[in-house]
Amino acid sequence: MSKEQLSVIKIGGAVIEDPEKKAAFIEGFLAVEGKKILIHGGGRVATEIGNKLGIKANMVDGRRVTDDDTIDLVTMVYGGLVNKQMVAELQGKNANAIGLTGADASIITSVKRPVRDGVDYGWVGDPVKVNDAFLADILTAGAVPVVAPLTHDGKGHIFNTNADTMAGTVALAMAERYDVNLMLTFELEGVMKDVDDPDSLITEFKEPFFKEMKASGAIHSGMIPKLENSFEALHNGVKTVRICKYDQIHTTNGSFLQI
Amino acid sequence: MSKEQLSVIKIGGAVIEDPEKKAAFIEGFLAVEGKKILIHGGGRVATEIGNKLGIKANMVDGRRVTDDDTIDLVTMVYGGLVNKQMVAELQGKNANAIGLTGADASIITSVKRPVRDGVDYGWVGDPVKVNDAFLADILTAGAVPVVAPLTHDGKGHIFNTNADTMAGTVALAMAERYDVNLMLTFELEGVMKDVDDPDSLITEFKEPFFKEMKASGAIHSGMIPKLENSFEALHNGVKTVRICKYDQIHTTNGSFLQI
Repeated sequence: MSKEQLSVIKIGGAVIEDPEKKAAFIEGFLAVEGKKILIHGGGRVATEIGNKLGIKANMVDGRRVTDDDTIDLVTMVYGGLVNKQMVAELQGKNANAIGLTGADASIITSVKRPVRDGVDYGWVGDPVKVNDAFLADILTAGAVPVVAPLTHDGKGHIFNTNADTMAGTVALAMAERYDVNLMLTFELEGVMKDVDDPDSLITEFKEPFFKEMKASGAIHSGMIPKLENSFEALHNGVKTVRICKYDQIHTTNGSFLQI
Repeated sequence: MSKEQLSVIKIGGAVIEDPEKKAAFIEGFLAVEGKKILIHGGGRVATEIGNKLGIKANMVDGRRVTDDDTIDLVTMVYGGLVNKQMVAELQGKNANAIGLTGADASIITSVKRPVRDGVDYGWVGDPVKVNDAFLADILTAGAVPVVAPLTHDGKGHIFNTNADTMAGTVALAMAERYDVNLMLTFELEGVMKDVDDPDSLITEFKEPFFKEMKASGAIHSGMIPKLENSFEALHNGVKTVRICKYDQIHTTNGSFLQI
């Protein structure tokens, strides 16, 4: 039986920080019909503000190590500045946005990422539980959740969390109630055979092909967990997963994942 | 006819910044039965962080003038850091807190404060409209709204807003649906005849007496708009207004306003 549609849309922090790109994204976002949830990344503004506050970014393999000062910094910047500016802007365009972190109404609970290969990422959490009932309640009330890349452990601690992972986790948790369409946006048109060739877009990106590319090392390592997360969502009831350019969410352009 | 009870509780930023006082407040807050809304102030941490970022606090008559940099600063600090830390802490104690600004789901819309006596307060807004239906929806869903002292104009702009005024406005807007008990907390026991004499607490603070004190100059000027706001709430259907110490909200101590 067909259920009501829900779009879960992830946008990167770098796009939000660029006024022109942000405007193009918002135009598409407003044109997406039906219920929708926006999950946004963090972006470089946290590093800039951190530098002024004397909080140095400490990156290991492209991931931010989140010490006590850094979790306060990203709580301010992602949960406050980036999130509320997006909310106010959407409100100004008649979308009834409500800005949330995973801690709010406990919409996303996570566990601290375990120390691996001697690296302790600090206050970084991996999502384990979604308050799907509450999200459904506020969607029914007509609100559009705008979620910052922060979660909590339910014991009083806030965690820095990967926005792509949050999007996949939310999509999966909502799949029982809705026909969920998950969209992960990038600056590229989608999954490309050759990033330098715009004509090499893979419109139907099949899981066996993904596994081949992964085995051959043809996919950038940072993309692997995102794609694995997305294929898992498809295997668990999410209706569609599409990877597309940030200004194409209201179209059907990009790469649809297929299992 | 008696309606369901709703407590609207205002806490100052200075109390939240003091770990011991914050803990005492939270203990009382958890003990307040039934539906509740917490509205918190900003506090000095914004000034400290602003100083590090090179954003100077510009105060006129004890009020912060909010320029472009300052509204970004308070959006980060009040809407992100202060609000989300309170939310995570309450979640850790099994209160289903949800952190919001006035922009979120447009719960509080305001208008820019007009220039008076040549003073332009910048991005400072005075509340004009409350989305009482949405607040009622999330209270029914079991959430506890925790509101930062920020509002919006519905046109894309965030405003710095006085937390006492917000509390009075929210209490009044919710009075049609609930029996609303408004509590404004301070570091004192309540309204005192003599601030240096703890035995001078006025337990029943009557409006004619307030007008006398106001006329004679016996009340500090900063208190006048807060008290006028509170008496107005009583005249417009709010059931009780109590001014009390931050750790006494679960008791009946303090000063009850009477019209």
